[in-house]
Amino acid sequence: MPELRRDPVVGRWVIISTERSRRPSDFSLAPVRPQSAGPCAFCSGQEGRTPDEILAVRDAGTLPNGPGWQIRVVPNKFPALRIEGDLEPSGDGVYDRMNGIGAHEVIIETPDHCASMPELSESEVAAVLEAWRQRMIDLQKDTRFEYVSVFKNHGEAAGASLEHPHSQLIATPIVPLAVEQELEGALRHFRIKKRCIWCDMIRQEMQGKSRRGGRLVLADEGLVALCPYAPRFPFETWLLPAAHRSSYEDIDGVDPAALARVLREVLRRMDSVLGRPAWNLSLHSAPLKAPTLDHFHWHLEISPRLTRVAGFEWGTGFFINPVPPEEAAKYLRQGLPRPT
Amino acid sequence: MPELRRDPVVGRWVIISTERSRRPSDFSLAPVRPQSAGPCAFCSGQEGRTPDEILAVRDAGTLPNGPGWQIRVVPNKFPALRIEGDLEPSGDGVYDRMNGIGAHEVIIETPDHCASMPELSESEVAAVLEAWRQRMIDLQKDTRFEYVSVFKNHGEAAGASLEHPHSQLIATPIVPLAVEQELEGALRHFRIKKRCIWCDMIRQEMQGKSRRGGRLVLADEGLVALCPYAPRFPFETWLLPAAHRSSYEDIDGVDPAALARVLREVLRRMDSVLGRPAWNLSLHSAPLKAPTLDHFHWHLEISPRLTRVAGFEWGTGFFINPVPPEEAAKYLRQGLPRPT
Repeated sequence: MPELRRDPVVGRWVIISTERSRRPSDFSLAPVRPQSAGPCAFCSGQEGRTPDEILAVRDAGTLPNGPGWQIRVVPNKFPALRIEGDLEPSGDGVYDRMNGIGAHEVIIETPDHCASMPELSESEVAAVLEAWRQRMIDLQKDTRFEYVSVFKNHGEAAGASLEHPHSQLIATPIVPLAVEQELEGALRHFRIKKRCIWCDMIRQEMQGKSRRGGRLVLADEGLVALCPYAPRFPFETWLLPAAHRSSYEDIDGVDPAALARVLREVLRRMDSVLGRPAWNLSLHSAPLKAPTLDHFHWHLEISPRLTRVAGFEWGTGFFINPVPPEEAAKYLRQGLPRPT
Repeated sequence: MPELRRDPVVGRWVIISTERSRRPSDFSLAPVRPQSAGPCAFCSGQEGRTPDEILAVRDAGTLPNGPGWQIRVVPNKFPALRIEGDLEPSGDGVYDRMNGIGAHEVIIETPDHCASMPELSESEVAAVLEAWRQRMIDLQKDTRFEYVSVFKNHGEAAGASLEHPHSQLIATPIVPLAVEQELEGALRHFRIKKRCIWCDMIRQEMQGKSRRGGRLVLADEGLVALCPYAPRFPFETWLLPAAHRSSYEDIDGVDPAALARVLREVLRRMDSVLGRPAWNLSLHSAPLKAPTLDHFHWHLEISPRLTRVAGFEWGTGFFINPVPPEEAAKYLRQGLPRPT
């Protein structure tokens, strides 16, 4: 019997389909592997092909925009939003607009063209996570911006147009609708219960209080990885600090090395279980100008791209997921290669 | 300069990107064409391979589930939801669930395996639109259902797993989140203005009151096709009755032949301008149990699948659209083949 399940934050119902239920080996996927050996514009020695770097982790004595780096953050050469100018919001009858002001940056995660995030060392992943944080803290100073979206597209099926490992961030003068909806749903819960909804979820998942086996993937060093109760996508996985924290920038209480270790481990298990799938990652954190929030809990959402989104999903916001999260978590807890 | 634009119904901001702006010929697409000549389970003579038909348009004297039909509606052989059973809603800690009860039907639009909706005759398209309506009216009688989503996936890139022309419907015991959000946004507008927001949009678009050329594609026989002000996708097009109507089932005042003519014409122009792209179509109509609503206006949303949705969109609900709707409308008004 299929099940309808409700996401407790935004109230989205999803269909956990049983007629169409699938095991990891049922997804026919082209494994994500580099198609070229480089060099591309993100490779070492090619620094002149990107805009000037904003931030870098470099060997002592090396010069900006030359070789000798582990990480570089550069403006996107084809930015979705422009950094210079004023918002100039205006109306046009029933419509509202403003100038497309924002920051669009690329975090080049390694000089190695052929690496991928799960193949980096723990300290390399930690350096990427630290670069996200530093850029968020810096962009917070620009009073035009309300939010910084950090995300990563891994593999062509996930929308990556360049294969060299990189993540991106876009700072916007508006809090995105999806984040607004999370904030609203979480505030509703907090007003009634005086508790953070994600803290409630973590507590329930840690107690394994579910009917068909748990949804916990791993819990380690103050971090929790779990498959959410009502996931839109098969093998969707969230990563959260076990203790309540609303802002990713607020390092206090989360060990960056531990976060890197857990993220890398989850990605390695996905690679193993699903055969190097494409995936998207996005960071959900409190808006830049929000004070510390008791009702919002920062988290990373990782979704392998195994199924196609079609007319039903686009038209309704309903999603059909052929893999119950209890099944996905079972595979991801073991992390064993899928049977072929 | 890129622009941020707000959808006046749900409040979603989109980025109309200029750095990345693209003409129709910039999208490299595999044109959607049938890969086989059939016969498949939806072809004439193969009726035994589908579940028994629920509705059909047939030649006089032919028997159900045999040849001699123009349209057949059958239950989906692999339904996302099951028709038998009770909802039995229950809680599990912070979570909510119910049994996956619903109807999932397939509308086989023609016996011709190799046809496509824009290639059908006007009367054939009208028969499809009439079948949607009849099924909605019938499913409305089942008090377990709150909503019927009608949608169509055309081409593999749009999620179609079978190439024989067909549309689908899913009846759900819940009003989908995307429809709820449209209803809420529209009610907010109505409470302040005492006007339907879509009626306001139609009025403004008909007057061509936009700064960079209009967004109207065509207006004919009581129907309007337009590119919305803040589209998520390039060449996204909406089709609405010019006069206010909240429910698609309510035929009164809309000529089905005219609707078929306008829909077919829009699809033919998309084929011509974009080189036979994949597309999704979805019908947005008032919930089944709603009375006639002054604030909701039924409409069809059609989106060619030209770009990939990636981490930024999934994480934020923000969309980056490289084609201003004024540009898209200009091409769709002309409907000429794209330059090669």
